[in-house]
Amino acid sequence: METFKVKAYGTVAPDADLKQMEIQRRQVLADDVEIDILYCGVCHSDLHTARNDWGGTKYPAVPGHEIVGKVTAVGSKVTKFKVGDFAAIGCMVDCSCPNCKEEQYCTSGFTGTYNSADVHLGTQTYGGYSEKIVAKESFVLKVPANLDLAAVAPLLCAGITTWSPLRHWNVTKGSKVAVVGLGGLGHMAIKLAKGLGAEVTLFSRTPGKTKDALKLGADHVVISTDDEQMKAVANSFDFIIDTVPYVHDVNPYVTTLKTSSTLVLVGFLGELSPALNTVPLVLGRKAVAGSLIGGIEETQEMLDFCGKHNIVSDIELIEMHNINAAYERMLNSDVKYRFVVDMASFKS
Amino acid sequence: METFKVKAYGTVAPDADLKQMEIQRRQVLADDVEIDILYCGVCHSDLHTARNDWGGTKYPAVPGHEIVGKVTAVGSKVTKFKVGDFAAIGCMVDCSCPNCKEEQYCTSGFTGTYNSADVHLGTQTYGGYSEKIVAKESFVLKVPANLDLAAVAPLLCAGITTWSPLRHWNVTKGSKVAVVGLGGLGHMAIKLAKGLGAEVTLFSRTPGKTKDALKLGADHVVISTDDEQMKAVANSFDFIIDTVPYVHDVNPYVTTLKTSSTLVLVGFLGELSPALNTVPLVLGRKAVAGSLIGGIEETQEMLDFCGKHNIVSDIELIEMHNINAAYERMLNSDVKYRFVVDMASFKS
Repeated sequence: METFKVKAYGTVAPDADLKQMEIQRRQVLADDVEIDILYCGVCHSDLHTARNDWGGTKYPAVPGHEIVGKVTAVGSKVTKFKVGDFAAIGCMVDCSCPNCKEEQYCTSGFTGTYNSADVHLGTQTYGGYSEKIVAKESFVLKVPANLDLAAVAPLLCAGITTWSPLRHWNVTKGSKVAVVGLGGLGHMAIKLAKGLGAEVTLFSRTPGKTKDALKLGADHVVISTDDEQMKAVANSFDFIIDTVPYVHDVNPYVTTLKTSSTLVLVGFLGELSPALNTVPLVLGRKAVAGSLIGGIEETQEMLDFCGKHNIVSDIELIEMHNINAAYERMLNSDVKYRFVVDMASFKS
Repeated sequence: METFKVKAYGTVAPDADLKQMEIQRRQVLADDVEIDILYCGVCHSDLHTARNDWGGTKYPAVPGHEIVGKVTAVGSKVTKFKVGDFAAIGCMVDCSCPNCKEEQYCTSGFTGTYNSADVHLGTQTYGGYSEKIVAKESFVLKVPANLDLAAVAPLLCAGITTWSPLRHWNVTKGSKVAVVGLGGLGHMAIKLAKGLGAEVTLFSRTPGKTKDALKLGADHVVISTDDEQMKAVANSFDFIIDTVPYVHDVNPYVTTLKTSSTLVLVGFLGELSPALNTVPLVLGRKAVAGSLIGGIEETQEMLDFCGKHNIVSDIELIEMHNINAAYERMLNSDVKYRFVVDMASFKS
């Protein structure tokens, strides 16, 4: 297979800083699109993968799955894109069984944008911290022309991860939605739920985030450590999206769900502690569920929706060589609300 | 309010045996039905209430909420029942806000058939271990004429408790349903899911129940302690109904759900231990939910369905004075699959 070299930013070991390196990309095949990367969002998963927090990281690791750029080449069978178009790539670039409709839930496993097996090159896949990327047309998204390209990047993971459950659980005009956690995912959940016409409440542990949450579009902020405030919202939400990425007590939130409603976890992978109490589940036919990123079709739907409603992420633009410092700030939740790498900083 | 005395069987303290006593019933009001009780099923909740296992029991406690009998009087406004009709009463006899449609999920609290506040008499409500009961017409069910009346009794709790989630989660012809636990609820779940046209698997910890499960209508039995058997059913069920009434590990069952499917707990109230792991929830958009008994309309629907499909409970008929021994046997799971009290034994 013919390949070409591109500059990338990655890491060779869990405890090493990210640094500039060189990787191979394949020359476009018949159904491929080659994209010159303009912006790449910085997701918590990037950091977890770079540092092998979840195990299974193959090195060198080049993270990045919130990719926006410009098409620089297309294969002979490509119909949706032409050279010069803006295009985006999210968390998936292929699937080992392309005819199934399971996408992110495919039990054979989808091909992640980074750290998955690259069926073409035999290496691991390399993400968006690089000059260019080549992917199958069917995994490439169209970008609405009216949006700020840099601020679109986080929609490809933080956006779709919150959009998919909002849609799956039928959030619509008038739905009462609560969001737990105000980070990259939480701030998108507020914007997207508002865009869908919901009445949105942010649960926050401290009053410090109230002003920001209201500015982002939340209708209410409930301080979850205040028993009176929590009692006042008992049995009141049609849907709760919990974006907190670390272990935390979900029980107080479950009690605020209406009968037959669902709390969905999109940020935390692990054992629920304190233990989940089934009493409010049984007495109110409530559910605790999970949701993972989103499918390609619904990602396009989300991007089009954002174009129509002028929704983008709130970002802080950084240069590629500042990524290690950005990771440290992310660990301290010191970002409003997503870092995006300006790839021009890398190419110059 | 005019009342009359009836013989009942109840208990005066958590550690006392049940014994014969006398209670008051109201004379029928305009919308009331008076029922001469012929059979009363014996539910685990009866025992928990008698012994104050959940706290909050008011004594004397007269359990029993799987009631089948014959109408002996009706109020002036009653239209659905006449003297001589067979009739049934389940877990609810009233609601403090009768205009809401929440029924068993009403957050103001429904009036349980026993151990709730009796708004008419000022005492606690007394259940079906008694000669007669008086209840509002709107909480009284019609009994299909073709069914064995004694074996109908457990449908009023064990039946509706499994029917309600099967219907809520749209189990239908061809659905792949798994049932966890083979007791009063589990055996009804098998029969009702089969009646709905589902392919039914029983999860059992030991092979000892295989023959019985197949006889009850299960298509398959999976031994949940056998890793190979569990792997073989990974990602294969559209719905799981977990009837186990004590703390147990739900994680192995969650992995056997298909994408976007639900495991519903109907038997266990408490903290999940071992802890619920969110990984399969997130990676497969799966849910863990709860469900409580059922509403009046769906109870009637279930009874009519059972009439049409000739479904009743498998029971062991006992005499009222043997209730204390029956409780001990229930604690040892020594019943196939539900005790029903023949109230004739009590009246003679």
